Amino acid sequence: MMVDADLLIHSAAQVVTCASDVPKRGAAMQDVGLISNGAVVVKDGRILAIGPTESIRERYTAVQSINASGQVICPGFVDPHTHVVYAGDRIGEFEQRIRGATYMEIMASGGGIVSTMRATRVASVEELVAATLPRLEMMLRLGTTTAEVKTGYGLDLVSELKMLEAIAALDLAQPIDLVPTFMPAHAVPPEFNGRSAAYVDWVLNEMIPAAAEWHRRSHFVDDDRPLFCDVFCEQNAFDLAQSRRVLEAGLLHGLPAKIHADEFTSLGGVGLAVDLGAASVDHLDATTAEDVARLAASGVVGIVLPAVNFNLGSHEFTNARALIDAGAAIALSTDINPGSAPCPSQPLVLAIATRYQRLLPAEALNAATINAAFGVGLAGRVGSLAPGKQADLLLLNCTDYRQLAYQFGGNLVTTVVKNGRIL
Amino acid sequence: MMVDADLLIHSAAQVVTCASDVPKRGAAMQDVGLISNGAVVVKDGRILAIGPTESIRERYTAVQSINASGQVICPGFVDPHTHVVYAGDRIGEFEQRIRGATYMEIMASGGGIVSTMRATRVASVEELVAATLPRLEMMLRLGTTTAEVKTGYGLDLVSELKMLEAIAALDLAQPIDLVPTFMPAHAVPPEFNGRSAAYVDWVLNEMIPAAAEWHRRSHFVDDDRPLFCDVFCEQNAFDLAQSRRVLEAGLLHGLPAKIHADEFTSLGGVGLAVDLGAASVDHLDATTAEDVARLAASGVVGIVLPAVNFNLGSHEFTNARALIDAGAAIALSTDINPGSAPCPSQPLVLAIATRYQRLLPAEALNAATINAAFGVGLAGRVGSLAPGKQADLLLLNCTDYRQLAYQFGGNLVTTVVKNGRIL
Repeated sequence: MMVDADLLIHSAAQVVTCASDVPKRGAAMQDVGLISNGAVVVKDGRILAIGPTESIRERYTAVQSINASGQVICPGFVDPHTHVVYAGDRIGEFEQRIRGATYMEIMASGGGIVSTMRATRVASVEELVAATLPRLEMMLRLGTTTAEVKTGYGLDLVSELKMLEAIAALDLAQPIDLVPTFMPAHAVPPEFNGRSAAYVDWVLNEMIPAAAEWHRRSHFVDDDRPLFCDVFCEQNAFDLAQSRRVLEAGLLHGLPAKIHADEFTSLGGVGLAVDLGAASVDHLDATTAEDVARLAASGVVGIVLPAVNFNLGSHEFTNARALIDAGAAIALSTDINPGSAPCPSQPLVLAIATRYQRLLPAEALNAATINAAFGVGLAGRVGSLAPGKQADLLLLNCTDYRQLAYQFGGNLVTTVVKNGRIL
Repeated sequence: MMVDADLLIHSAAQVVTCASDVPKRGAAMQDVGLISNGAVVVKDGRILAIGPTESIRERYTAVQSINASGQVICPGFVDPHTHVVYAGDRIGEFEQRIRGATYMEIMASGGGIVSTMRATRVASVEELVAATLPRLEMMLRLGTTTAEVKTGYGLDLVSELKMLEAIAALDLAQPIDLVPTFMPAHAVPPEFNGRSAAYVDWVLNEMIPAAAEWHRRSHFVDDDRPLFCDVFCEQNAFDLAQSRRVLEAGLLHGLPAKIHADEFTSLGGVGLAVDLGAASVDHLDATTAEDVARLAASGVVGIVLPAVNFNLGSHEFTNARALIDAGAAIALSTDINPGSAPCPSQPLVLAIATRYQRLLPAEALNAATINAAFGVGLAGRVGSLAPGKQADLLLLNCTDYRQLAYQFGGNLVTTVVKNGRIL
C-alpha cells in the first residue's frame, strides 16, 4: 500500500544525508551517507523517507515531484557562527589592512568592533533588519538554511536588546532559521575603557538577566530554540576569569555557553569550554596540543572559521586537519561579519578548508551540516537528511557532492527546499 | 535640444568607468574614473554618454530608463585567460592533492592536462558546448561579459580544430563575447612522449596553418576578433626555443602571441613575450627581478592568475604588488579550468588579489576590466565605460565599488547589460 506525501524528489545522482546521532569524528567525518540514484520524500515540512529512487517510488506517492537527475541532494547548510546583524561597513579598514595595518592595530586605532558598535547603536531595529535581509538572502541562495546570529555590536543594555529584537524580527521575516546568541562580552565598550571588570559586572548583573527574560518572552521558546551566551576570550577583550564569570552567569540564567577562544592567543578558553560543557568553542587558531587533546576527549564542537584567515590575507589557518585527526568534532562556519569575514558563503568556506586545511570534501560537508547543527544545539531537527527532521535541503547542479568544495566562487545551488517548501 | 537614446541608467551611487586609452600602470591603476550620482546612456548597443545624473538628464531622453540609486555601475569584467572549454572533471586529482600530491606529481602520473585531453578528444562539438554553457552562464551571472578561451585539450589537429569549433559555437550561443586562442602547445600529447621537438614541428607545419585558415573562415573575422596563439613555456612542457618557434609561426600566420610563462620556473618567457610584442604574458609566479623590469618597460600586459595559487592551497602568489610598483600593466583572470582553477568568478579573483597580493580594490578592478581588455586586444570596444564602446556593464548591489573586492563568496551583480541589452 502506497503512502501519500507532499513532495517526492527522485532520481538524484547522489543523495548525501550526513546523518548521525552524535557529532561526527574521525573516520565518521569521511562518511556523508551517500545514496546513488536517491530520493527524498517530504510530508508536512518534514522528511518522511530517504532511499534509492526505485524502492522509494514503490512505497510513496506525492502531490508534487521533482526529477533531480543530474543533480545532488544534500542537507541545507548550518552556519553556526555569524555576526550577520550589523550597521555600517568597514571598507576603510579593508584598505588600511591592504596597506599593512594589523587587525589589532586597527582595533587599537578605534576601528574594529567598536566602529561597527557606533553604527549599530544609532540604527533602529528596522534599519538593522533592512541592512541584514540582503545578507541573509545571499546566504540562503548559497544554501544556508539555519544560522546562528550573535549580538555584540551594541555593548550596552538597550543596544544589545535591540540586536536581539532585530534577530527575532529577521527570523520571522525570511526563511533561514536563526539561533540567537547573546554576546555583550564581545568587546569592552569605549565608556568602560580600562575598566573591563566593571563592564563584566554590568554584563552579569544587568544584561544577562535582561536577555534571559527577553528570551523567555520571545517566539524562540515556542520551538525550544535556545539563547546562547558567548564571550570573546582574548587579549584586549576578556581574560579567562572574566570569560568564566560571563558564561557561568549565562548558564545560571538558562543560556547555554559558546566561546570565542584561541583566535590570536591561547588563554585557556578550550579548557573553560570543556569544563562548562559549552556547545562549541570557536576559532582555535592558537590552540595548544594539550588543548587539542582536551577538546577531542570532550563533547564540545570545535567551530573553525577559515574565511577569517583568508580575509586577513593570512598564511596561518586553524590546524583543522590535526583537530580531526585527534578525534575532535569539527564544524565550519563563515563568521560573516563586517570586519574579519564579509563572506556569506558556506561553499566558499568548504573550498578554503579543503585547500588550506586539507579537509577532504566529505569532512568539510559534514562540518558544515550535521556537526554545525550540533554546534548550535539543533541537531535533533536540522543538519542532516533523516526521517522526522525538517525538510531543509539543497539541489546542486552537479553529479558528485565533492564539486561543492572543488568548484569555488560560483554557486551550484539551484534549488533550496526549506521546511518542505520549494523557495 | 534633447538627444534620443535607447536606455538611460541614472542616479547610481557611483559610476566607475575604468576608462583609459592605454593599459593602466602605476598611479593610473588607482584611478577608476569615479562619478558620484552618475548616469550612463546607451544607444544601438553602444555607450553614448556618461556623466553626473543631473547633466545627463538635461541632454538625453531614452525609451527605457533604470533608476540605479543605491547601486554601482561598472564595466562588465573581461576574463583574459580561460580554459573554460573542456570535457570531464578532475575531482579525483583534487582529493589526491588534499592528500599531498603536487601538481607536477599528478601530471607525471598521467593526470593533469592529459586526463582532460582524453575526455575532450572523445567529446563531440555538441558535447563540449553543452558542458561549457553552464560555466559561461555562471561567469556571466558573476559579471564577465568578455572572455578569452583557449584550445589545448585536444593536442591533435582534429581535436584542436574541434575545440575551435566549440568556441565559435559557444560565442554564438550565449551573450559573453569570446576571444579564441589556439594553444596546441599546451602540453606534449602522450603519442609524442619524449619527442617534443617532433610535436612542435607538427604544430608548426600542420596545426597553426590549419588554425589560421579556420580563423579566416570563421565569424570572428567579421568583427576583427583575432585568433591568438599561446604556448606553455615551462619545464615538462615547452622550452624557450620551442616556445619561440611556436609563437613566431603563429605571428607568421597572423596569430598574435600570448604566452604562459614563469608559472613554476623562469625559462625566459617574459623576454620572449617582450621581443615578440605579445599581447600578454601570463602567470608570472617565478619571474625574476630583471624580467619584472623588462615587462614594466614594455607594452605587454602581465596577466596574473591568483585563483590558481588559491586552488593549489599555495602560500606563494605572483608578486603582483611588485609588478605594479615597478610600472607593469597588470590584468587579473580566473584561468578557469578543471585542474588548477575550477573558478568562474572574477569578483573572487579580486578578493584574492586584494588580500594575498595586496592590490587596492581600484587596482584590482582596473586589472579585471580595462587592462584585461588590452590583454585580449579588444580595448577599443570593451573593458571600460566610454562613448562608442559596447554597452557591457554591471549593476552592483552596493554603494561603493570597493565592496566588489571587500565582500567575497557572494555575488553583488544584480543586472548584466550586454551590448545594451538587459539580461
